This record gives sequence, C-alpha cells and structure tokens, in this order.
Amino acid sequence: MSLETVAANRSFGGWHKRFRHHSTTLGCDMVFAIYLPPQAEHGPVPVLYWLSGLTCTDENFMQKAGAQRMAAELGIAIVAPDTSPRGEGVPDDPEGSYDFGHGAGFYVNATHAPFDKHYRMYDYVVSELPTLVEASFPVSDARAISGHSMGGHGALVIALKNPGRYRSVSAFAPIANPTDCPWGRKAFTGYLGEDETAWREWDTCALIAEAPERLPLLVDQGEADPFLEDQLRPQRLAQACERANHPLTLRMQPGYDHSYYFIASFIDEHLRHHAAALRR
Amino acid sequence: MSLETVAANRSFGGWHKRFRHHSTTLGCDMVFAIYLPPQAEHGPVPVLYWLSGLTCTDENFMQKAGAQRMAAELGIAIVAPDTSPRGEGVPDDPEGSYDFGHGAGFYVNATHAPFDKHYRMYDYVVSELPTLVEASFPVSDARAISGHSMGGHGALVIALKNPGRYRSVSAFAPIANPTDCPWGRKAFTGYLGEDETAWREWDTCALIAEAPERLPLLVDQGEADPFLEDQLRPQRLAQACERANHPLTLRMQPGYDHSYYFIASFIDEHLRHHAAALRR
Repeated sequence: MSLETVAANRSFGGWHKRFRHHSTTLGCDMVFAIYLPPQAEHGPVPVLYWLSGLTCTDENFMQKAGAQRMAAELGIAIVAPDTSPRGEGVPDDPEGSYDFGHGAGFYVNATHAPFDKHYRMYDYVVSELPTLVEASFPVSDARAISGHSMGGHGALVIALKNPGRYRSVSAFAPIANPTDCPWGRKAFTGYLGEDETAWREWDTCALIAEAPERLPLLVDQGEADPFLEDQLRPQRLAQACERANHPLTLRMQPGYDHSYYFIASFIDEHLRHHAAALRR
Repeated sequence: MSLETVAANRSFGGWHKRFRHHSTTLGCDMVFAIYLPPQAEHGPVPVLYWLSGLTCTDENFMQKAGAQRMAAELGIAIVAPDTSPRGEGVPDDPEGSYDFGHGAGFYVNATHAPFDKHYRMYDYVVSELPTLVEASFPVSDARAISGHSMGGHGALVIALKNPGRYRSVSAFAPIANPTDCPWGRKAFTGYLGEDETAWREWDTCALIAEAPERLPLLVDQGEADPFLEDQLRPQRLAQACERANHPLTLRMQPGYDHSYYFIASFIDEHLRHHAAALRR
C-alpha cells in the first residue's frame, strides 16, 4: 500500500494533500485528497468522507467548498476520493457522455460486463480507501460521510448499507431515487444490467424502508437547482423517510442552485453536524 | 453600458454574478464577476476590487478563495475582473506563453505596438470598471483593492498611483519589484518597450518612495512559495517601505505556497482589514 504524493499545500494551519496509489479493488491507479487539520499533529482525528458528483475528481470539493476553515476549527480530517476508476485500461462510455463511465462511477459495485472488472467504487469507498487512510495518517476510525448529487446518493446508500460504520451522514442535492430518474436508470442499466430488481440495493428510497440503523439524515437542497424535479427528487426521500419513520432533516434552500456556491454556503453547518456525532 | 448576465448563483444569502460587457477602454468584450452580500438588498455597500494573477479569469478567486462567507458577514461587495483583454482581435504572445498576452495584462497601460491598442488594464480597473459597477449595482464609492501575485502588484501600484481613491489596499504574494524580476521584465518589455525609465511608474518599489498618500500596506507571503526569491521579492518591498517610512505589515507565513489554499487561509483577515477602513 504505497502512496505517491501528488501535491501538498498548507491550508488553515493544516495540510491539503493529494496522493496516488494502486487500487486493487478498482484495478487501476487512483488519486485521492485528504485535508489534515492542525489537530492531527497531536493525535488521531476523525474523518469525514466526501463523495463528489458527476464529472468531478478529488479537486472540486477541496478547491471550491471552502471546508478547510471549519474542519481546522473542529479538528476533522476530510478525505475526497475520485468519482470513478480511470485510466486507459478502464472502459469508458463509448459515447463519451458525462454521466456514465469515467467520472460517473455512482458508488456501486458493477456486475455487468465490461464494467464489472473496474467499477467497484462502493467497495473502494467503504473498505479499501478507509483501510489505507487509517493505516497511513493520524486519523481514528470515527467516520462520517457526505456528498453532492451522485455523491449524495453514494453517501446515503453507503451509510444505510453499513450500520455502525459511520457516526453521521449528510448530503447536498442527492440523487434520492436513482432507480426512477434518467441519470440513475442509465447508470444502473450500464453497471448492473437490465434486471431492475438488482438496482434496489443501490437506491436510498428503497433502502430506507428496511434500514437496520436509524441514523438521522441531514439533506440540503437548493430550490433553484435545475436538476431538482427530473433527477434529484427530494420529495421521494421525504416520503420514504415518513413511511419508515426514518429521521430526516430536509432543508429546501430558496434561490440556491446545484453549484459549489450552494455547497460552500452550507458546508459549515454540515461539518458541525458531523463533528457533534464524531465527538461522541 | 449594457451588461449581459453570464451566470447568477445564490451564495451565503447574497449573489455571485458574472457579466459580459463591451469595454471601450480595452476594445473587446470582457467578463467580470461580482459578489453582492445580502446587505446590498437594503442599500449601497462598499466594494473590494480583487485582481487575480497570471492565467486567471474572474472565476479563480470567486470559486477558490472562500471569500463570500466573510464578505456576507461584513457587508462588502467583491468585484473580480479578468486579467487581460481577450478575444480573437486581441494580440496574444506569439509564443503562447502563460506570462504574457492573454491572461497576463499586468494592470498597465501598454504603449508598445501591437499591444497598446488593447492592453490598458490599468485604465479599465481604475476607471471604466468602477464607473460601470457603481452605475449598475447597489454599491457606494467606498473602494478597497487587493490581489494575488501579478494582481498583488496591480493592487499596490493602483493604490499608490491614485491617492484618495481607495480606502485600503492589501496583497497576497505580490510581484513587488517587477522591473527587476523575470516575469516583470518580460511583460514590461512587451507592453512598454525597451526604455526602462518608462517602467518605473508601474513598479511598487519605485512608487513607494514618492507616494503622496501613506496608505498602510497589508501583505501576506508564503515562505514555501516557489516564486518567492526569483519573482516576488518581498524583501525589496520591505526595504522600499523602510526607506520611505511607508507603513507596511508584511507577514511571512511559514509553509504556505502560492496557491489559493494559501489565499483562502488568510482572506478573512484581509476582508476584516478592508472592512475596518471601508466603514470609516
């Protein structure tokens, strides 16, 4: 498990660093970023995993969310993986679209050829990456998870499927019901095949009903988000939570869109939410 | 003076907006960004002009500096122009370098053909853009100016050449002595010609000696900045200020580099510095 340093930048008294490593889960080299707050110099700190949306790499969140200031204040590390396996040997969408293939792994384990060999972002994010991070940096095994859009879907699904593994979960504008929106149906058809019954284990709304752990969900959603009605569908999440009596704080934010300007405006509140759970 | 909206994003209760307009000073269309804090809905707010560095557009600062949170708290608008004239009709460096031509206007008025027709970023930033901004948005004529690297040079030179026009000035890693560093000498040769006596009116260290107004300078400089010794030379600025008894707060920041991670780490302190002056 060797890590090659790609970049290191001092940030709010801590460090933003990028590393390349070979992922056995994904069968390719991967780059991820970590923000280590100043407190990490004196002992292990908890970790928030951030899952980004379509087309992103580790860089979007680290450069645009403005999260380091509050992470430094609260003493939380943040780890941002890439959004898919990449590289010449990794099959991409033959049509070159932005919403499937490279940059669009959807945080599932693909079962459908030719994607099943590499597209195992679920296993990477849940297992391989935390094992690597916890072995390589001064961090504890107290974990939180959050993300945006496709990454919001990823964060919610991963928390729901792994009771006890995360202390807290939140999302910005998640794809709440991917089995019934164009982005999700395209991705799941490609990664999982045509049998829709196999899709349900990757759908937040389906998982909520049978969740063995009732971890409260914090979700922010911009009301001016152009993807609100067709792709994100937060009302489906609200309905699923109400039916299952699952704790949800869904905040509709007037005027906000799908951009990192939206995320930056509310990231501090999410970090405080996670810090409160991580301190317990 | 018509403005075409390019983008509008809600941000920290205010608005980040981008506009395109035709600049008569530069003889081309230009895009700039403005952050309007929530207070602008209730009356005029003061404005900080931010000048970016080589290769940047208006987007780098707005996306990466994390300035909107504190600007919203303090009630300050921020205007970020582009770093040069652009477009097919605007001559670029024939060698296509990053440090001359498009993206590298150096905030001077060029006198040397073929650049003298378009490269008048000084007049644009000092006159045309503020006139447009103050006519178009709920802002007052209380102005501050700051910038990074090439833009730090621009902010210092513009403040020094315009006593009374800015309430405060600051810079991150400015090119402090452009007449005696590779970036500056290349740009000034191209924009101003071979006669180095004409360069002096665009050099902070030369202007400090005869400054009619002793506006205090706040400068942050990363000690791990790879351009520190060859290009930026903050010690020249310190010497010039000491000789002229010009007030300077030069803060060397251990471990910080030239990136926006550095800027983001200290932007709040610069905004507070400007807010204190703008409130007077």
